[in-house]
Amino acid sequence: MTKTDIARRVYNHTWKLDPIIRSLLDTDFYKLLMLQMIWGMYPRVDATFTLINRTTSVRLADEIDEGALREQLDHARSLRFSKKEMIWLGGNTFYGRKQIFEPEFLAWLEDFQLPDYHLEKRDGQYELTFAGPWMYTTLWEIPVLAIINELRSRAALREYGPFALDVLYARAKAKMWAKTELLKQLPDINISDFGTRRRHSFLWQRWCVEALKEGIGKSFTGTSNVKLAMDTDLEAVGTNAHELPMVLAALADSEAELRQAPYRVLKDWQRYYGGNLLIVLPDAFGTAAFLRDAPDWVADWTGFRPDSAPPIEGGERIISWWRQKGKDPRQKMLIFSDGLEAETIVETYRHFHGRVRMAFGWGTNLTNDFEGCAPVPTTRLNPISLVCKVTEANGRHAVKLSDNPAKATGDEAEIARYIRIFGNEERVEQFVKV
Amino acid sequence: MTKTDIARRVYNHTWKLDPIIRSLLDTDFYKLLMLQMIWGMYPRVDATFTLINRTTSVRLADEIDEGALREQLDHARSLRFSKKEMIWLGGNTFYGRKQIFEPEFLAWLEDFQLPDYHLEKRDGQYELTFAGPWMYTTLWEIPVLAIINELRSRAALREYGPFALDVLYARAKAKMWAKTELLKQLPDINISDFGTRRRHSFLWQRWCVEALKEGIGKSFTGTSNVKLAMDTDLEAVGTNAHELPMVLAALADSEAELRQAPYRVLKDWQRYYGGNLLIVLPDAFGTAAFLRDAPDWVADWTGFRPDSAPPIEGGERIISWWRQKGKDPRQKMLIFSDGLEAETIVETYRHFHGRVRMAFGWGTNLTNDFEGCAPVPTTRLNPISLVCKVTEANGRHAVKLSDNPAKATGDEAEIARYIRIFGNEERVEQFVKV
Repeated sequence: MTKTDIARRVYNHTWKLDPIIRSLLDTDFYKLLMLQMIWGMYPRVDATFTLINRTTSVRLADEIDEGALREQLDHARSLRFSKKEMIWLGGNTFYGRKQIFEPEFLAWLEDFQLPDYHLEKRDGQYELTFAGPWMYTTLWEIPVLAIINELRSRAALREYGPFALDVLYARAKAKMWAKTELLKQLPDINISDFGTRRRHSFLWQRWCVEALKEGIGKSFTGTSNVKLAMDTDLEAVGTNAHELPMVLAALADSEAELRQAPYRVLKDWQRYYGGNLLIVLPDAFGTAAFLRDAPDWVADWTGFRPDSAPPIEGGERIISWWRQKGKDPRQKMLIFSDGLEAETIVETYRHFHGRVRMAFGWGTNLTNDFEGCAPVPTTRLNPISLVCKVTEANGRHAVKLSDNPAKATGDEAEIARYIRIFGNEERVEQFVKV
Repeated sequence: MTKTDIARRVYNHTWKLDPIIRSLLDTDFYKLLMLQMIWGMYPRVDATFTLINRTTSVRLADEIDEGALREQLDHARSLRFSKKEMIWLGGNTFYGRKQIFEPEFLAWLEDFQLPDYHLEKRDGQYELTFAGPWMYTTLWEIPVLAIINELRSRAALREYGPFALDVLYARAKAKMWAKTELLKQLPDINISDFGTRRRHSFLWQRWCVEALKEGIGKSFTGTSNVKLAMDTDLEAVGTNAHELPMVLAALADSEAELRQAPYRVLKDWQRYYGGNLLIVLPDAFGTAAFLRDAPDWVADWTGFRPDSAPPIEGGERIISWWRQKGKDPRQKMLIFSDGLEAETIVETYRHFHGRVRMAFGWGTNLTNDFEGCAPVPTTRLNPISLVCKVTEANGRHAVKLSDNPAKATGDEAEIARYIRIFGNEERVEQFVKV
């Protein structure tokens, strides 16, 4: 009594494309928050985003077919926000606030389309850039990373039969579930999914999000993925990213303006958002420099997201800065989001427990951990350190220093100039796994 | 674009029964080999089989609904060997021999139906007996065990949602695959699936069999499950069981005849089968007694299946007996099949490697190992020590002593009489897990 759905089977076999990005909401929530501010304040700024593969040993152009990549990018460009998605964005409450998005912004968003891209192969890598108005190019970051990472997974999985795939996913599920069991021992922990950009695949991210929802219950406070937040009735979470200070720094016409850029971003941000959204991302040009020169009002913000220093060290630095500014860290929040694994989450939680509010934005190790899962060991399922960074703003170089020189991006001469201006204090090279 | 197969869904929701036994071939191969001999030599012997739950802490009648049990038993009774199955039995080569089943036997088998049963509840357990001609009742053993074990699994799983079930099976698959990886390090090992009777479910047994096939390749020498052998093109394996000496012993009219019963069985067997099928099961009334009184020709048989002593100890006893009889153990075979786990298989293999040919019949721990797999720990998925034993033959008690007094079955006075006759040498109580 074998039952085959003939229509489904024929349909499956004539598929032209299995789209990786099926919705413009399949992006990180902070991109939309930043987009509203860019749209409102910097509509005439051009910004170029560039794909950067820091894992140079992986030759992406050898692993991923160019035609398949173009098909996926073109498919993403064909997407528009759907009526249901627009209604959800307009009607939902984010961070306890209704109508976080202005009606005029939403009206503009209705016609949004991802802009064109420039793609070529060079030395086994893809040169992939998105040039044009910042308020368009910015939304490419997440889908392009998700597309390349999933195409890479698909290429690696192509050699497996159905049975090997079954074991692979079974192991990955067992592994993921063991993490939830570890984490649920920490009763008042707050963890969110930040794993969209480096996910193994969309379906796997969804599985992991559902696993966390079931596994750690109320401790799972949301997902940065807007589509998953909508589909699974979770909170959409996230605040802002390095591109804001990077672009504002690039636009600065003097050294004084450049030094002020990181704080001007915060002022801009505060015009749009308040409450729990007042999270400082301090490391664009080095956290030490940021804290050294920060005006006192920065200490009034809700919290910090140290994103490139080891979590305990980075957190301690900010706590002691709050104390210097006369603030009680127990009223403040630290959001950890850099290269977290279940074990580092536990360790960091135990270290700071009772001394500061904490949240963990769990990325790659949540949505792309297949280590030891393949029937035959392979490195092709290991996540790589792939980013899509703003590299130019209005024709000028955009630069990130980071607390970790290995995560710096941009023109080398310009990096040197930024180091001269911001200093090189406490910037320590750390191995970047992803 | 959610696609729901409406017809399939309606069909699923109106299911009257999800049958556990869907084919009369869903049984152990040795039952068919024994059946041909019973049909040929003992067609007028009546034999009663009785369900015995040695894990008394598990109250089967509380866990399993009586109506559901009757439905499954009745469904099994409705089955007949299909045309395709008969062709396969008649046309296949078993143990290198064509037409192992006589045409007259196959003609009789075509109309075979499982006979009626007697079922009642008592003290939280089921009293379940099958009385009538041996050549009919014998075939109940495997399906009734599979039915009760799977009904018990289903009852335990009823409380889980789809997500918890997904994690449960993912973990079980990961666990099973780790076993294949351990075992494939032993290059010339021979392992067969003997797990039908204690399986978690039919579908899970099939998964495990496919996992072994993929995982250890040629080292996986077959399955005792005739249906799975047919469906997956594996060898059907197995020889004979305790019911033969037990019935013949029960029929014995004198002490001398009783003492000779275990050897008479072998003579009968040899009339039907030769070659690799000449495997002695020595422990029905204690291996020590069996070896002590065995005629020399027993040492000419291909091998032994020590089934109730610890494998290394049991194997050494038989090897030294072969040596006493002037036989080279390296030409002989030991088949281990009692309570094997991956680790005991490895240990036993390493112990005897190069000294004797070995085969492992892997049962419960292959097809029903969910320890540590449930999202919330439960004992309800642990396998239990459930057997279906011949308890009467032509109105007389049938008895098994075993090398392990915990595995003895039958009337207590009769057990005492058998011990007087066969002796109690080297019978050592061992914990019976399954």
